[in-house]
Amino acid sequence: MALIHHPVVNRKGEVVASAVTNLDLHDIARAARTYGVRRFYVATPLKDQRRIAGEIIAHWIQGAGARLNPLRKDALALIRLTESLNEAAADVKEKDGRTPFLVATSAKGKQATFGFADLRRRVRAGRPVMVVLGTAWGLAPEAIEACDGLLAPISGGSGYNHLSVRSAAAIIFDRIFAPAEETGR
Amino acid sequence: MALIHHPVVNRKGEVVASAVTNLDLHDIARAARTYGVRRFYVATPLKDQRRIAGEIIAHWIQGAGARLNPLRKDALALIRLTESLNEAAADVKEKDGRTPFLVATSAKGKQATFGFADLRRRVRAGRPVMVVLGTAWGLAPEAIEACDGLLAPISGGSGYNHLSVRSAAAIIFDRIFAPAEETGR
Repeated sequence: MALIHHPVVNRKGEVVASAVTNLDLHDIARAARTYGVRRFYVATPLKDQRRIAGEIIAHWIQGAGARLNPLRKDALALIRLTESLNEAAADVKEKDGRTPFLVATSAKGKQATFGFADLRRRVRAGRPVMVVLGTAWGLAPEAIEACDGLLAPISGGSGYNHLSVRSAAAIIFDRIFAPAEETGR
Repeated sequence: MALIHHPVVNRKGEVVASAVTNLDLHDIARAARTYGVRRFYVATPLKDQRRIAGEIIAHWIQGAGARLNPLRKDALALIRLTESLNEAAADVKEKDGRTPFLVATSAKGKQATFGFADLRRRVRAGRPVMVVLGTAWGLAPEAIEACDGLLAPISGGSGYNHLSVRSAAAIIFDRIFAPAEETGR
């Protein structure tokens, strides 16, 4: 999983760098740990933002937080801070020996090339897969184009699809990894 | 859906009243709206906490937030503040004419009486169903006992199940409502 803070779009569709949100780190790391995701990359080109995020993570991994709540430590230890999606993909290549297959996500996703069944098949096939989520109003077009495929949006069936990135991450993990005997599907 | 702030347990298993978290309101309301959930009850016996939550909601429904982000207004309009789970259930009875079937949730859930397939069947059967989530370290035993059934925990298969209540709500909605043609299951 990679959470991208640039290039993403704002409400007006302009390309911006968003701020790192504390609860994104916690919620997505806890969900990643729950579903056995190997690493959670948090990408931002802003050095100060990486520093702040690094301090939050250090508090929970080495600091007072680690003593207070060791379970939180297990989750936040999955986070890697990078400058960009490229750097995250390069890190996977270095650690796993193979370039990850990058799956972009979008709440619009008219040009989606990937369904959830395709995604599960890819994950099971063994080559590293990285799901790429955008903060703010979502990944900028150039970030989507830098990926190998675009995942179908989570619709919910109501015509309203404005989930938080935290909720979207949890649902995507569940759709990939939840065992059929548990979901009853 | 009901989000309970008392009686819940803290890290030590003691029964407490937890504070209302701003992002719980936003994330769960947005997910509820996405999946067509009818109402999102936020229950706390603490008058000050209901007042603060009421001010947050009013900001997004009537205040500056409503002009800034009308989509957020649609989501937060689903929230009803109540003193207790009982008051939430009574409100459903008043509005829908029938007592809701209350489904408790727990990350432990050894005594679970309900799987997700059972839950989907109940929801489709038409009688109002209310899924009851606990904040802090989860619903206190007396809150679970006050419900009609206990839902199986979301496991993820890793042995680690410490999802945030926001993530758990999103996953539960998705497991109930996501159409099979979208999840590919």
